[in-house]
Amino acid sequence: MSETLPPLRLKKNEERRIRAGHVWVYSNEVDNTATPLKAFTPGQAVQVQAHNGKSLGNGYVNPASLICARLVSRDPNYVLDRSLIVHRLKVALSLREFLFDRPFYRLVYGESDQLPGLVIDRYDDICVVQLTTAGMEAVREQVLEALDKVIHPKGVVLRCDSSIRKFEGLDSYTETLGDVPEHIKVEEAGLGFDVSLQQGQKTGWFYDQRMNRIRLRAYAKEKRVLDVFSYVGGWGLQAAAGGASEVFCVDASEQALDRVHANAQANGFGDKVASIQGDAFEVLSQLRVDQERFDVVVLDPPAFIKRRKDNKAGEQAYHRINQLGMQVLKKDGILVSASCSHHLGEEQFQKILLQSSRHLDRSLQILERGHQAPDHPLHPAIPETAYLKALFCRVLPS
Amino acid sequence: MSETLPPLRLKKNEERRIRAGHVWVYSNEVDNTATPLKAFTPGQAVQVQAHNGKSLGNGYVNPASLICARLVSRDPNYVLDRSLIVHRLKVALSLREFLFDRPFYRLVYGESDQLPGLVIDRYDDICVVQLTTAGMEAVREQVLEALDKVIHPKGVVLRCDSSIRKFEGLDSYTETLGDVPEHIKVEEAGLGFDVSLQQGQKTGWFYDQRMNRIRLRAYAKEKRVLDVFSYVGGWGLQAAAGGASEVFCVDASEQALDRVHANAQANGFGDKVASIQGDAFEVLSQLRVDQERFDVVVLDPPAFIKRRKDNKAGEQAYHRINQLGMQVLKKDGILVSASCSHHLGEEQFQKILLQSSRHLDRSLQILERGHQAPDHPLHPAIPETAYLKALFCRVLPS
Repeated sequence: MSETLPPLRLKKNEERRIRAGHVWVYSNEVDNTATPLKAFTPGQAVQVQAHNGKSLGNGYVNPASLICARLVSRDPNYVLDRSLIVHRLKVALSLREFLFDRPFYRLVYGESDQLPGLVIDRYDDICVVQLTTAGMEAVREQVLEALDKVIHPKGVVLRCDSSIRKFEGLDSYTETLGDVPEHIKVEEAGLGFDVSLQQGQKTGWFYDQRMNRIRLRAYAKEKRVLDVFSYVGGWGLQAAAGGASEVFCVDASEQALDRVHANAQANGFGDKVASIQGDAFEVLSQLRVDQERFDVVVLDPPAFIKRRKDNKAGEQAYHRINQLGMQVLKKDGILVSASCSHHLGEEQFQKILLQSSRHLDRSLQILERGHQAPDHPLHPAIPETAYLKALFCRVLPS
Repeated sequence: MSETLPPLRLKKNEERRIRAGHVWVYSNEVDNTATPLKAFTPGQAVQVQAHNGKSLGNGYVNPASLICARLVSRDPNYVLDRSLIVHRLKVALSLREFLFDRPFYRLVYGESDQLPGLVIDRYDDICVVQLTTAGMEAVREQVLEALDKVIHPKGVVLRCDSSIRKFEGLDSYTETLGDVPEHIKVEEAGLGFDVSLQQGQKTGWFYDQRMNRIRLRAYAKEKRVLDVFSYVGGWGLQAAAGGASEVFCVDASEQALDRVHANAQANGFGDKVASIQGDAFEVLSQLRVDQERFDVVVLDPPAFIKRRKDNKAGEQAYHRINQLGMQVLKKDGILVSASCSHHLGEEQFQKILLQSSRHLDRSLQILERGHQAPDHPLHPAIPETAYLKALFCRVLPS
C-alpha cells in the first residue's frame, strides 16, 4: 500500500529528532531539490524518508504549514486510513476505559495518541471532534466512520474553529451530525455539570483539570473559597463537595455564571455558592480594597501566552493575577494557581509565583504540582504535548 | 537580641540569591576580609549581611562546610532559639494536620519549613529526628524541648547518621530518648505497615511516595503487579488494596521481605503477595528470561545519583533498570518509574525513559507525573528541596 506513497525526503541529519521519537517535520528540514514541498497538496499522504532514502514512516504533508509533515506510523505498512484510525481509537479507548468509570473524557489527544491533528472529547454518547491539520481534515470521513464503529455516538459536534487551523490554511467551521441536545451533562467525581457544547468554550468542558479539581476537595473543608475564571464552576463545585463553607465564583461571562448557579443548585450546594461577574483583575482588586479575604484562592486563567511572542506580556499578566490572588488570601492560605500556556515552562511559572510572593514579602511552600489529567497523556518525545500546570501552594507571612 | 550576633558579611552582589528567596550562603560568597570565616565556630549564630552592611537576616555558620551559612529568619528580631523553633514547629504541624487525618507524616522538612538542617518524621507518638548541620546540632536541646512542647512524643529516635553530616564535620550517631518500641505501625490510606525505626532504611518509612503509592491503586485492579525495590511493601500492598490479582515484591533484603509478608498477612492480602529476594537487576533479567510478564511494574530504586559526579554511571543505571522493567511488561502495560535523585531533573528522567522505550522499539505515554507528597513541600527558591519524580507511563508496542 505504502509503495504508492510519494516520498518526502529530508536533508542530511534532519531525521534525528524523528528517530528520537518526535513526529513533526519542519519545512526547513525538507530536501526541496529531491522532493519539492510545493509539489504536494495540503494533507497529502507521504512516506517520510531520511536523506539516504530510508523510510522513517508514513505521514501527511502540508506545504503551507511551518510544521510541514507529521508522521502517523513508523511502520511503512500502515497509512492513515479508516482501518488504522479504528485501531488507534481502540487503543485510545482502552486507556480511558481503564482509567475512568464513566464515559466522560478526552478520548483522543492528537500526537500522544498517534493521531496528530485529531482531538476528540467524549460526553457519554456525544463526541466533540476537532480536526486541526490539513492531513486530518483530508481523512475527515474516515475519522467519522471509525468513530462510529468504535464508539457509535448518537451525535457528533465538529468544532473545527480553532485558531490554529489558520496555520494550516484551513477554514473555520462547526457542524453538528446526528442528535446533539442543546445542553448535556458532564459527570466528574460524583458531580454533574450542565454545559453547552456549541456555545461553550472550546469543546465545552475542560477535562484536563479533572485531577486537580478533585484534589482541591482535600483543601476545601470548612474553607472560604474563591474560584477565579470559574467558567461553569468546575473548581468551585468540587470545593463545595469537599466541604467548603462558602464558594465565590468569578467570571466575565454572565452566561457561565448562570450555569454556575444552576449547577450548584442541581448538586445541592445552592446555598453555598455565590458569583461575582466581571473582569478577574478588576474583581480581585476590588475584593482586596473591600478587605475580603479567603482561605483558598483558585486561579485558572485562559492561556495568557498563546504564542511565543506574547511571552513578556503574558508573564506580566501571570505576575499580576498571582499577586492579586495572594493579596486576597488570609495570612496562612492556599493558592491554587494554574497555567495552560505551553510556552510557559513549569520552572518559569514557579519563578513567577516566587517573585510575586517575595514582592509581597510572603513566603511560599509548593505542596503539590498538578498537571493535565491522564486522558491528555504526554508524548515524552514531543514537549509540545505538555502544557498544563496547577500548583497548590501555601502562602505564609514571611 | 540579634544585636549580639556577630556579622557574616557577603561580597558585593552576592546577596542576590538570598534576596530572591534562597537561604544558603556558599563559602566563596563571604567577604573574608571583613568577616573571616575561620574565625567562627561551627554552628555559631550570625547575622548575614549584604556587602553594604544591610541585614539579610539571621542564620548560623559553619566554616567547615561549602554551604557555610543558612538563614533561619529574615527578620533580625528572631534567632534560632527554643521560642522560634516552637513557632516553626506549630506552623509545620498545622499544615500536616490540615492535610492528613492521622498523625503519620514528615512533620518538618528542613529549609521548606524554615528549619534548615532539621528533618522530623512523625509516627503517631514517636518522632524520628535528623539533624544534618552543625547549626542545628548546636540547638539540639532546644529542638527536643520544642518538640516536646508542641507534640509531646512518647519517644524520640535521633537518627544523626546521615552521610551528609560529614560535609558539616559532624560525627554520626543514633540515640533513643523515652519509650520507643522495637517495631511501630505506620498507617497509610487505610493500610497498616509494621516497620523498625532503628533498623529500617533512613527514618524507617518513606512518606515522600505516599500520594504516588495511593495513586497506584487506580492502576492495579485485576492486574499482575511487580514491585521492584519493594522494601516493606509500601507500593505492593497499595496495589493489592486496589484489587491487584497478584503482587510480587522484589528486594535484596530478606528482612524487608519478611516484613512484606507480615504486612500482607496483617492487611488481609497474604494469599496475593509473593516475594523474590535478590538484586533487582538480576531478578528482572531472570524474570525476562523466564518469560514472566506483568501488567504493572513499579520501579522505586534508591538514589542512583547521590552526588553530581555520579551522574553518568547513575543515568546508565536508570537506563538499565527501566529497560529491564519494560522488558517484563505485557504489550500494553503500565510502568511506574521513580527517581529520588535530586541531581536527575524530571526532564532528563523523562528522556531516559523515552530512550529506553525507543531502544526496545516501544512507545510511551506519560499519564501522570507524581512528586514528593505535600508534607515534603518545595521551597520555590531552593531547587535542592525538589527531588522525587514518579512517572506513570503506558508502554505500547511501537
